[in-house]
Amino acid sequence: MTVAVLNAMLKPLLEGRLPDWLDVRWYATKGEAMDLAPQAEIGWFDMHAKEDMVEAITRATRLKWLNSIIAGLDFLPADLLIERGVTVTNGAGINALTIAEYVVMGMLSRAKGYREVVRAQDRHEWLRDAPGKRELAGSKALILGYGAIGQLVDARLTAFGVSVIKVRRNAGPGTLGPDDWRPRLQEFDWVILAVPATPETDGMIGAAELAAMKPGAELVNVARGAVVDQDALVDALRAGHLGGAFLDVTTPEPLPADHPLWSFDNVEVTMHLSGRSQTLMMARGAERFLDNLAHWHAGLPLENRFDPSLGY
Amino acid sequence: MTVAVLNAMLKPLLEGRLPDWLDVRWYATKGEAMDLAPQAEIGWFDMHAKEDMVEAITRATRLKWLNSIIAGLDFLPADLLIERGVTVTNGAGINALTIAEYVVMGMLSRAKGYREVVRAQDRHEWLRDAPGKRELAGSKALILGYGAIGQLVDARLTAFGVSVIKVRRNAGPGTLGPDDWRPRLQEFDWVILAVPATPETDGMIGAAELAAMKPGAELVNVARGAVVDQDALVDALRAGHLGGAFLDVTTPEPLPADHPLWSFDNVEVTMHLSGRSQTLMMARGAERFLDNLAHWHAGLPLENRFDPSLGY
Repeated sequence: MTVAVLNAMLKPLLEGRLPDWLDVRWYATKGEAMDLAPQAEIGWFDMHAKEDMVEAITRATRLKWLNSIIAGLDFLPADLLIERGVTVTNGAGINALTIAEYVVMGMLSRAKGYREVVRAQDRHEWLRDAPGKRELAGSKALILGYGAIGQLVDARLTAFGVSVIKVRRNAGPGTLGPDDWRPRLQEFDWVILAVPATPETDGMIGAAELAAMKPGAELVNVARGAVVDQDALVDALRAGHLGGAFLDVTTPEPLPADHPLWSFDNVEVTMHLSGRSQTLMMARGAERFLDNLAHWHAGLPLENRFDPSLGY
Repeated sequence: MTVAVLNAMLKPLLEGRLPDWLDVRWYATKGEAMDLAPQAEIGWFDMHAKEDMVEAITRATRLKWLNSIIAGLDFLPADLLIERGVTVTNGAGINALTIAEYVVMGMLSRAKGYREVVRAQDRHEWLRDAPGKRELAGSKALILGYGAIGQLVDARLTAFGVSVIKVRRNAGPGTLGPDDWRPRLQEFDWVILAVPATPETDGMIGAAELAAMKPGAELVNVARGAVVDQDALVDALRAGHLGGAFLDVTTPEPLPADHPLWSFDNVEVTMHLSGRSQTLMMARGAERFLDNLAHWHAGLPLENRFDPSLGY
């Protein structure tokens, strides 16, 4: 028997479906999680406070496999996980579908000036002309990051008649390599950021990249606020070089009420809600966990592996 | 030589591309249009006021082909056009791409509660949770009307993982016939109206159809306001049976400022802007006209024919 320590909230999704080689110990409170952690060979310790998760994992000295529905696990003690040889599986892509839908909504809202329509409705005012007159069809988009989100965005935009170019670590047909996209920035009407948060992607869109973008082009960020040099973005927006931005993520979060990004006519700020706009995250996480349990028992590699040494 | 009477506004789009068998007479004012109309064998008399168009067409006693970029030409004197044997080509589908993009934007906005996000940004408030948690993926849509708009909506929604059923005059695979969709209304999360305005579609969504819809389902109307019994819609919304509505069209237009549809939490009113949210209508109309001139000269049937006796 392998001991698994799991949150009792998952019971309705998992009960009756867990294999008989698993000895499951459920925790309902943070205290119970801390008490049970040292017994865990398999552990799923998602908690609201990151420091609580770190504490539980630190106490889990017998842990072989740590599962999570969180995608960005860069806050975990990487050295400790590496030293103990813990296999980590994360939630990367678990909300990708919802986020991809949000990206297309954001682009459509920017193209049609939809916020002005919403405000006019709130005034009960019948607008005589459209506040935005762009079509996605025939436009050109660059997707930086081609994981689960990037791929789903690609498929949707392609159906809209958008010409999509992807940036991937390993270039291939229809894609650009990590060093090839900067000189071609002026070609795109849309630059979409869907990269993981790593030291390499930190500040990858700075003043030079913003200046190289096509005048009137739009920046869409569903990655992390830190991927963009936000002061440089504010400058580029003030200068009127960009058409606008759709920012699901900012630095910091929450964005302070007096931050200039709130007030631009051409910037939509969506409060990191893109991934939250669904009700299926836990159910999808439970399905993934059950699939991975079967892999684990069969000695097969787990899916959705997170590498603590790379941070994604 | 065939005499064509055209609006001088079209000159930049057509000049240098017109065939030499055409004797073009340009009008710059309404008065010039009226003076030139009796000479026209081919005429393009789009004007702001419908009554002016009717007058010009009435005066065009030699007219063989009337072209327009307007889709809904049901206001024209049908008897006169039929009696004179005038071939009519219209703008059906010319804005279909823009309207289809608007439909998907509307569905995404409804699914994610995007208006609440816009309002929160206007307050500089960082929402902690998403106001809408629906995904298009996995939902089911019924498209009533499968012309240019319906087909483009279908392709886009299919890429989002929506299961789409179409209603067409002639049923076929994946489609329902005109008498088959009512008993199945309760299956759909989305009912999308993209039918032409004809006596047959007038009031096709009434109290019975609204009551038959799935609880929580959404109505999307980019057809005409009159396709929906609007009082019945208000009643169904007040009763809480529907999830909401995305209404590009209403009865009347503009919607009076005190009309209840403006104020529902779950109704988005978009002021017939869906087709106006582009800049390419005239250019697309000019391309169509040039193509049809070649058909005309070759004795081939014209494309985008409008049948005055049917009204579409």
